[in-house]
Amino acid sequence: MPNQTTFAADLQRKIDMKTKPAGALGRIEELAAQIATVQGTLMPKMQSCQLTIFAADHGIADAGVSAFPQEVTRQMVLNFLGQGAAANVFAASVRADLRVVDAGVTGSPFNEPAMLDRRIGSGTLNFLNCPAMTSTQVEDALQKGKDLGRDGAWDAVAFGEMGIANTSSATMLAHKITGVGLDVLTGRGTGLDDARLAAKETILRRAAQRTGQLEAKEALREYGGFEIAMMAGAMQGAAAAGRIVIVDGFIATAAALVATKLEPNSRQAMVFAHKSQEQGHISILNALDASPLLDLDLRLGEGTGALLAWPLLQAAATMLTDMASFEDAGISGPA
Amino acid sequence: MPNQTTFAADLQRKIDMKTKPAGALGRIEELAAQIATVQGTLMPKMQSCQLTIFAADHGIADAGVSAFPQEVTRQMVLNFLGQGAAANVFAASVRADLRVVDAGVTGSPFNEPAMLDRRIGSGTLNFLNCPAMTSTQVEDALQKGKDLGRDGAWDAVAFGEMGIANTSSATMLAHKITGVGLDVLTGRGTGLDDARLAAKETILRRAAQRTGQLEAKEALREYGGFEIAMMAGAMQGAAAAGRIVIVDGFIATAAALVATKLEPNSRQAMVFAHKSQEQGHISILNALDASPLLDLDLRLGEGTGALLAWPLLQAAATMLTDMASFEDAGISGPA
Repeated sequence: MPNQTTFAADLQRKIDMKTKPAGALGRIEELAAQIATVQGTLMPKMQSCQLTIFAADHGIADAGVSAFPQEVTRQMVLNFLGQGAAANVFAASVRADLRVVDAGVTGSPFNEPAMLDRRIGSGTLNFLNCPAMTSTQVEDALQKGKDLGRDGAWDAVAFGEMGIANTSSATMLAHKITGVGLDVLTGRGTGLDDARLAAKETILRRAAQRTGQLEAKEALREYGGFEIAMMAGAMQGAAAAGRIVIVDGFIATAAALVATKLEPNSRQAMVFAHKSQEQGHISILNALDASPLLDLDLRLGEGTGALLAWPLLQAAATMLTDMASFEDAGISGPA
Repeated sequence: MPNQTTFAADLQRKIDMKTKPAGALGRIEELAAQIATVQGTLMPKMQSCQLTIFAADHGIADAGVSAFPQEVTRQMVLNFLGQGAAANVFAASVRADLRVVDAGVTGSPFNEPAMLDRRIGSGTLNFLNCPAMTSTQVEDALQKGKDLGRDGAWDAVAFGEMGIANTSSATMLAHKITGVGLDVLTGRGTGLDDARLAAKETILRRAAQRTGQLEAKEALREYGGFEIAMMAGAMQGAAAAGRIVIVDGFIATAAALVATKLEPNSRQAMVFAHKSQEQGHISILNALDASPLLDLDLRLGEGTGALLAWPLLQAAATMLTDMASFEDAGISGPA
């Protein structure tokens, strides 16, 4: 990596000399600068993207915090493997690779060759009554995630999740780490009505009483999920390997919050794909000083929003590498 | 086209039965519904996109309303032909085709085989003093545009423009057609500072005094540009041919306003790509009851914002055609 001050100045000059009014590509210019900085080159490459979906179950589902039954986690994993989910069709549409990791779905292992087995357990415990997992499980999930995030040859990686009740886990992580209130953070998840939303908040308030404000690893142990912990590790591993990390919605942003607390350098590699319709998302984005690229009222997870942002990253990189300068093209500057 | 009420109900049912919580894909679901409706099928196809860039010059440039000299229109056309502009690199990045049409650039014809010659004249007259063009030129530009929009086999078409001073023309069209004030509509274009922005508004106020509120064709004759008129025609032609029309930024939205006034049925085929940083854009979007998909602080034109929205349309269509239903995938519904 060259001298950082010189590099930043050279980068800005290169962007400003492209054949467009200065700043006229707005967020795309910022994105180009971020990509070039992460890769440490004025000729960044943004040609390949992989989405990893982490799946796991949550003991808190027993408390009735989700609109869907827990069995849907396993059913949706099989849907991913059958290429039928939104994440599959979006990945195909934007030409990203996709893999699915079992981080701890309730029941027996899948024994599906198309799936990576990184099981930490058969679902977490119900955090209403006790810590969701052990410290050993936290460390195991983070390390398996780091390994998965570090390996491979993709220019950008995105992370998605599947886990019935995992908005509850993400809400608790954000609450305990940032101190933002549960009234602000608790949302409808897969589609709770007003009465069930109020019940969810009551349940989370009870669960919150077990502990005070927490550091990131303690928060994972008390209220986390296997897929969220593994995703947080994967974000750290990918960022350390110089890959751009495309952060999806509410749950992925909670994982990004954890990753950033554990390894602050991870933050610079993160691109925040979209603002979710899940009401607490904006608070977690604010805690990360993050401005999402898209605002499409998505609230699905699976990495779907991250996939839709991927073409913007490709366009940003090609702006730097392929677009002519005023000098190249013989174009007059401002009068 | 099947019975419209039945079709709309079948379409909504198909979207709701996809393996996701109802509404969880937000704007993508709306987009899928619009695409299916325009194509009149539950299995829409969204595989090919063509950007047409219309270039022309504007007499009002003589009044000093732009930060860049008029010669830049011609220089940028050559940059498009040389694959060096932002529109070129974005088109390549999102796999859209691109063509350039000379609608009336000042000077002699280009005689470039890669370019379509549809010249209406050698730039418009300066609308500060007289109508920008004749009624015959308006009709000629609209008809040439309709023919260009109608022909071809693309699923979606986007339209971009290049023409120094054309934010002034678009501002006047929007002002005269909608009645929104010039203080609201006049913006910095390619980058005017505060003093030159104030001067631009003063010039446009003087030009506005020549006429009262105007119908769309009169507004084109008085204040339009060849590229804007041709684009308005192309939008009508493409919409009539059942193609999705991806509307770019400030100038393209002014053309969409004209197209919609001339042929209200054009509106249903239009997808509004992005909210431009040009300050008057939101007012024209509001006049069209349009919610743009992206908000990336772009203000370049050339169709660049439309190109960045194209992958969202592809993803939306594949949601309908390729994603599994709850029944297909054997997934439990809400508890």
